[in-house]
Amino acid sequence: MKDVNSSLLARIKWNERGLVAAIAQDAVSLEVLMLAWMNRESLQLTLETGDAHYWSRSRQALWKKGETSGHIQHVKELRLDCDGDALLLKVEQVGGIACHTGRRRCFYHLLEDGRWTVHDQCEPVLTSPGKFTG
Amino acid sequence: MKDVNSSLLARIKWNERGLVAAIAQDAVSLEVLMLAWMNRESLQLTLETGDAHYWSRSRQALWKKGETSGHIQHVKELRLDCDGDALLLKVEQVGGIACHTGRRRCFYHLLEDGRWTVHDQCEPVLTSPGKFTG
Repeated sequence: MKDVNSSLLARIKWNERGLVAAIAQDAVSLEVLMLAWMNRESLQLTLETGDAHYWSRSRQALWKKGETSGHIQHVKELRLDCDGDALLLKVEQVGGIACHTGRRRCFYHLLEDGRWTVHDQCEPVLTSPGKFTG
Repeated sequence: MKDVNSSLLARIKWNERGLVAAIAQDAVSLEVLMLAWMNRESLQLTLETGDAHYWSRSRQALWKKGETSGHIQHVKELRLDCDGDALLLKVEQVGGIACHTGRRRCFYHLLEDGRWTVHDQCEPVLTSPGKFTG
């Protein structure tokens, strides 16, 4: 994935802030891990290095996923949607933890009986693995 | 999923246009089908009816998925991410087609050798099923 050319980037419909949505999906479990954003630079770095880089809208900064936590995402597959404004990354999630809360994925609020409950298929990996399994 | 209360909606971090990103994932295959957007009304209708409703940014209109095509999405599970600005819907995709191009999913542009190629695990369902399977 090292051949980053301008036509590749030109196919993407960057929004008014120069960003495109990027969904990270676990390449093995197929769980959706997180939704983040990329600008041109973060996509280029992702393609050049093979590791996911995003743009942090809150910090307004380039962000290599896992740079401090070690929870790097090795990108196995990259897809673009029909209208060019969303990317889908299939990733190998190092450490099995995508969320900054220590959970496997960011989508751990489940709607149950009309309210959001914290529920992942597994509890936070670091604390009590397997609570909901089997 | 009929108990739509205001605290449920208040947990969502709506963007400056009053929208939240919504990822639709096939509940069986776990394929990511599409990324769309919801406003409060479309989320309420989704919860009340059990069928996915979105907000079309291009048409600036409420949009019941599959209203004209019949490719309705029955929502089986709804999740919210850690920072409240993305929803994940696990859906039963009626007809097996989520994309307006007739493909199973919108993410059919695959990055290969530095360029986007049209590639789904299956070709468009309506034309040549199974071309890439087995």
